[in-house]
Amino acid sequence: MKDSAEILCIGTEILLGNIVNTNSQVISKGLADVGIDMYHHTVVGDNPQRLKEALEIAFSRNNIVITTGGLGPTYDDLTKETIAKYFGLELEMYEPAKEWIISYIQKMHRVLTENSLKQAMMPKGCYIMENRNGTAPGAIIEKEGKTAIMLPGPPKEMGPMFQDQVIPYLEKRSGRVLRSHCIHFFGIGESQLEHQLHEQMEQMTNPTLAPYAKEGEVMLRVTASAATPEEAETLMEPVIQQLYQRYSDLIYGMDVGDLQTAVVKMAQQKGVRVATAESCTGGYVAKRITDVPGSSAMFDCGVVSYSNQIKERVLGVRHETLESFGAVSTQTAQEMAQGVRRVSGADIGISITGVAGPDGGTPEKPVGLVYVGVDSDWHREVLELHLARNFQNERENIRYLASSNALSLALKTILLKK
Amino acid sequence: MKDSAEILCIGTEILLGNIVNTNSQVISKGLADVGIDMYHHTVVGDNPQRLKEALEIAFSRNNIVITTGGLGPTYDDLTKETIAKYFGLELEMYEPAKEWIISYIQKMHRVLTENSLKQAMMPKGCYIMENRNGTAPGAIIEKEGKTAIMLPGPPKEMGPMFQDQVIPYLEKRSGRVLRSHCIHFFGIGESQLEHQLHEQMEQMTNPTLAPYAKEGEVMLRVTASAATPEEAETLMEPVIQQLYQRYSDLIYGMDVGDLQTAVVKMAQQKGVRVATAESCTGGYVAKRITDVPGSSAMFDCGVVSYSNQIKERVLGVRHETLESFGAVSTQTAQEMAQGVRRVSGADIGISITGVAGPDGGTPEKPVGLVYVGVDSDWHREVLELHLARNFQNERENIRYLASSNALSLALKTILLKK
Repeated sequence: MKDSAEILCIGTEILLGNIVNTNSQVISKGLADVGIDMYHHTVVGDNPQRLKEALEIAFSRNNIVITTGGLGPTYDDLTKETIAKYFGLELEMYEPAKEWIISYIQKMHRVLTENSLKQAMMPKGCYIMENRNGTAPGAIIEKEGKTAIMLPGPPKEMGPMFQDQVIPYLEKRSGRVLRSHCIHFFGIGESQLEHQLHEQMEQMTNPTLAPYAKEGEVMLRVTASAATPEEAETLMEPVIQQLYQRYSDLIYGMDVGDLQTAVVKMAQQKGVRVATAESCTGGYVAKRITDVPGSSAMFDCGVVSYSNQIKERVLGVRHETLESFGAVSTQTAQEMAQGVRRVSGADIGISITGVAGPDGGTPEKPVGLVYVGVDSDWHREVLELHLARNFQNERENIRYLASSNALSLALKTILLKK
Repeated sequence: MKDSAEILCIGTEILLGNIVNTNSQVISKGLADVGIDMYHHTVVGDNPQRLKEALEIAFSRNNIVITTGGLGPTYDDLTKETIAKYFGLELEMYEPAKEWIISYIQKMHRVLTENSLKQAMMPKGCYIMENRNGTAPGAIIEKEGKTAIMLPGPPKEMGPMFQDQVIPYLEKRSGRVLRSHCIHFFGIGESQLEHQLHEQMEQMTNPTLAPYAKEGEVMLRVTASAATPEEAETLMEPVIQQLYQRYSDLIYGMDVGDLQTAVVKMAQQKGVRVATAESCTGGYVAKRITDVPGSSAMFDCGVVSYSNQIKERVLGVRHETLESFGAVSTQTAQEMAQGVRRVSGADIGISITGVAGPDGGTPEKPVGLVYVGVDSDWHREVLELHLARNFQNERENIRYLASSNALSLALKTILLKK
């Protein structure tokens, strides 16, 4: 029988809506990568009777059940007890886990209580997973063709344990390893890219291609399954090369995380410094650049010039330019980019001016009209963008897309530097 | 029998981990507010057989089932068909829905396809809910003590339909209305506030108090159930007054959304303008202020001075100050706040300088040390903060908390203005 899995999350706080169930997504993605089918997610509260019933239902339709939550020290943490009982197993003190818990609690300067050690009571004969980010160990039970994988509830404990211990276990179980690369696109929509690659994606079985939409961007994930990591890489290579050839203008990097990280890394490599002058984005570009550790090596000045007065006073935009063309114009964008270069002494000045809404739009300059400019010794350009999409959170969306376009233009300019 | 509900989400994209199931959280919160018990969440894919089985399980343990997804125009959208069959109902064309769909598609400049009208086929005799943010209507079926509530999958369609149509339906069903207010705290942790209010919260039944943690903040939700909205308000009033008396220093507003909105509104009311000078937060405060529509009335200048050179050149921080005390110091924070006031002509200058990490920390000035300063004619202050928490995403966390503290200090200063 082919493996199929169900996720069973245990936690009253999920049923009350106090937290979003992000664990299910993380586990689902991982299982999809390893090629294990997943047909059901279930959530129940911290109630042993309902957990028992849900467990029976889950094993009646799937041979792998992955639980999250209910492994903690309090009286209502009953996952291990309930699952051990289901399998007819006793709980016993697992000494290494006891030591992990004691040393973790000492490291965090907390007090060891009797309850804490309850977390080291594990079903007899199970495979135990250390928790490097908390106290409750995880466990895997295999019995009579059924597999229960128990993970802690807090995402920062669950995530690493799943990635570092469950995925290798599932890979070992299948005798295959999975490797993947993420190719980052900017300037093409998910549906357009999917449309262009549709036939190819349908025909491919190993490696596979899967697009993921991020606001204003697309990531294309190439995943290969093979007996060894090297073999997986060899399988992916020609596909990646082909994509780079076809989409050279639209790909901004591989496994690079996001646009701002690509900008910071490339600027560091080329030894250029970037400065920003922002109107409608109000600091969003500067904020995204400085999100990246080490950005101080290529960024030292940003100006948020939200009014015309500040555009003139701080950036030296000419009064006549603002009078003749308005604050939202190619000319103002140009002078803002020049101005912030002059003020900061940076190699590249990036500017943004536009109408983020919801108010302030006119028939000539509607909400969503944004100019993004760049100034450097080797490249000057101003883009006119129309970013209104009728989305619910239009202002945030326009500001985010404008900042992404500015980062993309900065990256292009950095790459043009000889 | 007391109502209890199960959420049944239909969507293969959830099982593949392509999207997070935020719908379940929104619905869970709403039901908790209306006082309907919720013991199970289930997710199945776009598969009629598994949907049918999940539906049977759900109705075997709960009398209300709320579905999301599977109402769209494509061949694998089968929620209505499966649920109608379960109840023994036929589908029939619902003319008003047909008109909604046609006019919505025209409004969005899309092409009407035959499939689109499939969305207007509704189970006979059900209560139909208009979709104001998409094409697929929702429906409620009540039969033999069972209630099925079908909602569309996209969160921006589901959310408003649930809030505007399902909640009133459930209120009507229970003969009670629910009203709530959110009291926003800054400067106290969730566990501390919960600890202080624990006994009171335990004893209260109507209204109830529930704390929600947001990064660095707490919201306390007061909820009352009554026959009329007015009666609910009357029940909440003394509780709210008491909280305001006890926590006057820590409450920054009621139903105000977030810190930046409170700052923008209060600055507008008082007629003062704010300017920002940011080092380690790199534009985060300016970005958060300009997130708020209408912020241009009280904000027009932000400077991101990431290097010492820019602190001197643009903000006029004295060279000796940087030499003697360093960039991360009370003195530099003070001069940055003064400097940005001078440059911008604003009434209040806010400054931030600190070590966001992961690198750049020293024993004397470790990662997480941040100075937040304010300068105005009527109030001057610099706060020293220690924001390292050993979190996974430490840099983002320090930057966010630093920007929240700056907003809180800005708000305090605005309130001190006569």
